[in-house]
Amino acid sequence: MFRATCIAKRATHAPPLYRLAPTSYARLTSPALLARTYATTPESPSSKLIRRARTAAKYTFFIFGSTVVGCVVLTGAIFLHDAFTYHNRNIEGVPVAPRALQPERGGPKNLPILSTLLSDWEDDENRGLAEKPHLVIVGGGWGAVGVLDKLNPGDYHVTIVSPETYTTFTPLLPSAAVGTVSIRSLVEPLRKIAARLRGHLINARAVDLVMSERLLEVETISPNGLKDQHMYIPYDKLIIAVGSTSSTHGVPGLEHCFQLKTVSDAQAIRKRIIDNFEAASLPTTTPEERKRLLSFVVCGGGPTGVETAAEIYDLCQEDLMNYFPKICRKEVSIHLIQSREHILNTYSEAISRYAEDKFNRDHIDLITMARVSSVDHDKVTYTRRKPDGKVETFEIPTNFILWSTGIAMNPFTKRVSELLPNQVHKKAIEVDAHLRVKGAPLGTVYAIGDASTIETSIVSYLLELVDEADKNKDGKIDYDEWKIMVSRIKKRIPMAEEQLMKVRELFDLYDSDADNSLNLNELAVLLQEIGNKITALPATAQVASQQGKYLGKKLSKLAERRSVLEANGLTMDEGDEALAPPFRYRHLGSLAYIGNAAVFDLGRFSFMGGLAAMYAWRSVYWSEQVSMRTRALLMIDWVVRGIWGRDLSRL
Amino acid sequence: MFRATCIAKRATHAPPLYRLAPTSYARLTSPALLARTYATTPESPSSKLIRRARTAAKYTFFIFGSTVVGCVVLTGAIFLHDAFTYHNRNIEGVPVAPRALQPERGGPKNLPILSTLLSDWEDDENRGLAEKPHLVIVGGGWGAVGVLDKLNPGDYHVTIVSPETYTTFTPLLPSAAVGTVSIRSLVEPLRKIAARLRGHLINARAVDLVMSERLLEVETISPNGLKDQHMYIPYDKLIIAVGSTSSTHGVPGLEHCFQLKTVSDAQAIRKRIIDNFEAASLPTTTPEERKRLLSFVVCGGGPTGVETAAEIYDLCQEDLMNYFPKICRKEVSIHLIQSREHILNTYSEAISRYAEDKFNRDHIDLITMARVSSVDHDKVTYTRRKPDGKVETFEIPTNFILWSTGIAMNPFTKRVSELLPNQVHKKAIEVDAHLRVKGAPLGTVYAIGDASTIETSIVSYLLELVDEADKNKDGKIDYDEWKIMVSRIKKRIPMAEEQLMKVRELFDLYDSDADNSLNLNELAVLLQEIGNKITALPATAQVASQQGKYLGKKLSKLAERRSVLEANGLTMDEGDEALAPPFRYRHLGSLAYIGNAAVFDLGRFSFMGGLAAMYAWRSVYWSEQVSMRTRALLMIDWVVRGIWGRDLSRL
Repeated sequence: MFRATCIAKRATHAPPLYRLAPTSYARLTSPALLARTYATTPESPSSKLIRRARTAAKYTFFIFGSTVVGCVVLTGAIFLHDAFTYHNRNIEGVPVAPRALQPERGGPKNLPILSTLLSDWEDDENRGLAEKPHLVIVGGGWGAVGVLDKLNPGDYHVTIVSPETYTTFTPLLPSAAVGTVSIRSLVEPLRKIAARLRGHLINARAVDLVMSERLLEVETISPNGLKDQHMYIPYDKLIIAVGSTSSTHGVPGLEHCFQLKTVSDAQAIRKRIIDNFEAASLPTTTPEERKRLLSFVVCGGGPTGVETAAEIYDLCQEDLMNYFPKICRKEVSIHLIQSREHILNTYSEAISRYAEDKFNRDHIDLITMARVSSVDHDKVTYTRRKPDGKVETFEIPTNFILWSTGIAMNPFTKRVSELLPNQVHKKAIEVDAHLRVKGAPLGTVYAIGDASTIETSIVSYLLELVDEADKNKDGKIDYDEWKIMVSRIKKRIPMAEEQLMKVRELFDLYDSDADNSLNLNELAVLLQEIGNKITALPATAQVASQQGKYLGKKLSKLAERRSVLEANGLTMDEGDEALAPPFRYRHLGSLAYIGNAAVFDLGRFSFMGGLAAMYAWRSVYWSEQVSMRTRALLMIDWVVRGIWGRDLSRL
Repeated sequence: MFRATCIAKRATHAPPLYRLAPTSYARLTSPALLARTYATTPESPSSKLIRRARTAAKYTFFIFGSTVVGCVVLTGAIFLHDAFTYHNRNIEGVPVAPRALQPERGGPKNLPILSTLLSDWEDDENRGLAEKPHLVIVGGGWGAVGVLDKLNPGDYHVTIVSPETYTTFTPLLPSAAVGTVSIRSLVEPLRKIAARLRGHLINARAVDLVMSERLLEVETISPNGLKDQHMYIPYDKLIIAVGSTSSTHGVPGLEHCFQLKTVSDAQAIRKRIIDNFEAASLPTTTPEERKRLLSFVVCGGGPTGVETAAEIYDLCQEDLMNYFPKICRKEVSIHLIQSREHILNTYSEAISRYAEDKFNRDHIDLITMARVSSVDHDKVTYTRRKPDGKVETFEIPTNFILWSTGIAMNPFTKRVSELLPNQVHKKAIEVDAHLRVKGAPLGTVYAIGDASTIETSIVSYLLELVDEADKNKDGKIDYDEWKIMVSRIKKRIPMAEEQLMKVRELFDLYDSDADNSLNLNELAVLLQEIGNKITALPATAQVASQQGKYLGKKLSKLAERRSVLEANGLTMDEGDEALAPPFRYRHLGSLAYIGNAAVFDLGRFSFMGGLAAMYAWRSVYWSEQVSMRTRALLMIDWVVRGIWGRDLSRL
């Protein structure tokens, strides 16, 4: 009774607590609260549904709202930042060394010598750098960028000599060739990369080397209408990282083929593919000619060839089909000619098989165990050996041929090789395990990447090795001495390690006269055979990049420990062996895109699959980008492809 | 007393309302509510500060959280969408008309006639379209895109003939030339634009016209190694929208100049600018040569010239300066040669002055009232008349010359003009107010954009006009008849409107013998002089686009009302005047970018300023984009420039 009165009282005039806190009173009677109040009573299924719908709506609204707010904030931030990027800067009188304005002449050809560059006196930091050892890097690819990446600022006066002003992310060139990504997203100006080290770029082609005077001869790439000039760039340390050209394998007519090593190659391929489709879509084109125009031939079943074939397939299937007469898509044929038994033959067998199955499903014509015998402007001719040993000849009429098999020396590498009598390798400059060019003055000339190959011939060190290992000087090597020798070989040529695992077995095997020691003849046979078994490092971006980074680190160490070296009576040029171990390649795995699917060969295990693998493949390349700029642009390219398809503009 | 008891009661055991609603009870006693409750008591300043800080933190957290959530949601949505864009499609047997595979030959040159295209039988919709009137559009620029934009799908069988496969957003070419935006963001494939109408693209150059048989002769652009083919494209209606080339003004040596009309021009300019900087940064370049390499000359003070000069200035000032020796920036000189007294002379005076002031502040060398007399590979020669009337000759050594003054006919326009004896205009094809080519069979050939000019000669209609207006047939025109005549002239040549405002004054002025009527001689003088006063429409994107849209709308109307026309005894070719008013140009204003600033001439008032105006300038161009794709890409380009600067890769 009392309680009831109390409640009635509250209803007529508000009790003191509510007077104190009017907001909470309002809250108590608000519809939201009432809804909550009733929510504790058992619900009917329909009210449950309503509640769920409400919750869902709330979340949707929250996420949508957040997205809008997020976009607005981002846009605002970008505009704000943008507004601060426009400003006028004035140049005060900047000092320039008189010698940089009028270089002295000298060297065997009496050419100008660029001992001081235009910006060397610009400020104190640059003046200091000009006094440091001059490091000249020839080339602007993976190797060069690796070096630039690991060098410490302030150690060297760095000059890059490159005919291109930018570095290219080569593994995505096949994507760029069909417009999946834009070319701009694959390149980064070398001047920007070198800015961290206050490095310089000479936009020129290296043509010759005067090792005795430490002069690199270059030829400038001049703007239209100007004569190319020759000049010398002096160096204390020179790194040759000029890459390679495609091997011709002696096939005639390769001038009709495309390569895929540079940005211009990708642009030319893009233009040709669209041109072929445009010509094929004309009624005046005969059906045979249409077939020819839409037949795409890729020679070489390595990653580049496979990826290009896959990307061309994607382009035809996903984009061109929507905009060209359907008969054009029907007549498209893609052919992949491979000399070995399988495509991607350096990958695991499972991967080769997976890729081949995928290509077969996509009706990409795989022609294995075939050799291209000649190329014409309108066809490719290849041969295949039949089981009975007879050679059959086939022809594919085509208007697009990509040549991507093997590497060969470019003119500068060839010239360097000619200058050094002990350089005998035919495809690259031979370097020792410290990446120093064999035969060049010690510690002055290095070569990395496709331009170089690490020596695998152990037998040439025979006498030195015996000298070091033959402790009792009996002219023979017993087992204890052999163990010493093995460790010496491993140090000189780490790539021989695998062949030298079974120390005892080798000793016994080659001890032909079973006198429990190896004489010179026996040793020569042993070392020769082991040397032959070592496989050279592949000509890949991964190898070049690792070599560049190794060299960059080592050079910084050399500069840092210069005084220590000198205290030990060594010059900087002799420090390689003292301060750093020889180069060791660590294979991180290979990967390839095969058309909305990708394969990974990680050594011990393989991974392959459809879209998920493709995204993984993208992630790997994305993380390997040289700058945040290209990373952002790549991401945008992929999104743009998703929304609007590939770029069909043949630009 | 009673109240106090009641409160005490509530404190010891909860009153019935709270039992009913435990959630609200919890709420009442929650710390948040208590804080609110106490908030009504007066605050100390420090607690106020804390509260504000809390609020600020809450908002910051909300905005930050929203941004993160927003980004995650967007990325998720993009990936989800992306995953659905990879799929395999198969092509069933698609029917192709036999005549599309083997076109008949005919016409005066016995060439193949493309009366049926490859995709015409692909499906029912295409089959239906093949029966519709064939509309052929020559060109792929502003005019053509305007037509495509306004045509209704299903009315015509549309074929675009263009040597480029894409359309270009020309107003941003100066930006693309220095890498502020990427070229890819300015182009949109014509096939994509035409897809809405199921239109076709013939990638070819128009070379000749057989008006009697309604055949357009084209020459294909063939991929490397193929011979260009000639063929006829039959049309029911033809639209000539091929644009123009630069006028030479008879200056020798223009082959050394750049133009800025196409994407390739922009690419070539970009390459040359970077090349010049690279060559200038070599110590072997003499100081004079360096000055020459870094001297940029723009001939023509119109919007293109002004914007290019401004963009080159920006590039040097904001980007190149960071990566090239500072002396290079110091030696840069930009020259703008203009034949009139002011730059941007078609804009309001205030704008010209503003732009000139800005350029003077930026040390861009303005050379007005000057005529270029010759161009060499290494210099420009120009003359200026001194106040005493003597002509002085000057030279600017340079390695970059942009020629952007005036327009001239391209070869196809010239050919069409030669075919029609009454075509006398030297710079373009003359069309009537309905944009029909004068002299061509009525309603079959139209010309728009730079390729055309609307007739301004009224006197050529003299006899017709008198015939229509001379109601009493006395061979003279009295004032009432003159009023009729004025309305007829306005209808025929709407551009004469402004000159005909003062009807009475004109009548009195030209009535030389004051007989209160105009005889034929007096009329001839009147019409001639009025005609001379009409200014032709400028050769701008705006005019071309409006003409294209006008024509697109009209053609759709013609197709729609075909039966009405026929019921009135008119063919489709005669319907222009019956169904649509003559073309009227509505000037929406001009704008120009002048280097971190922009100017707008909106007719009645002008607007100019720094960054804010620049953003407004961007907004206008952004909204005028032809597709959402280019819109997104442009926005990205501007953001990328803000974060990482312009693209320096000379690609």
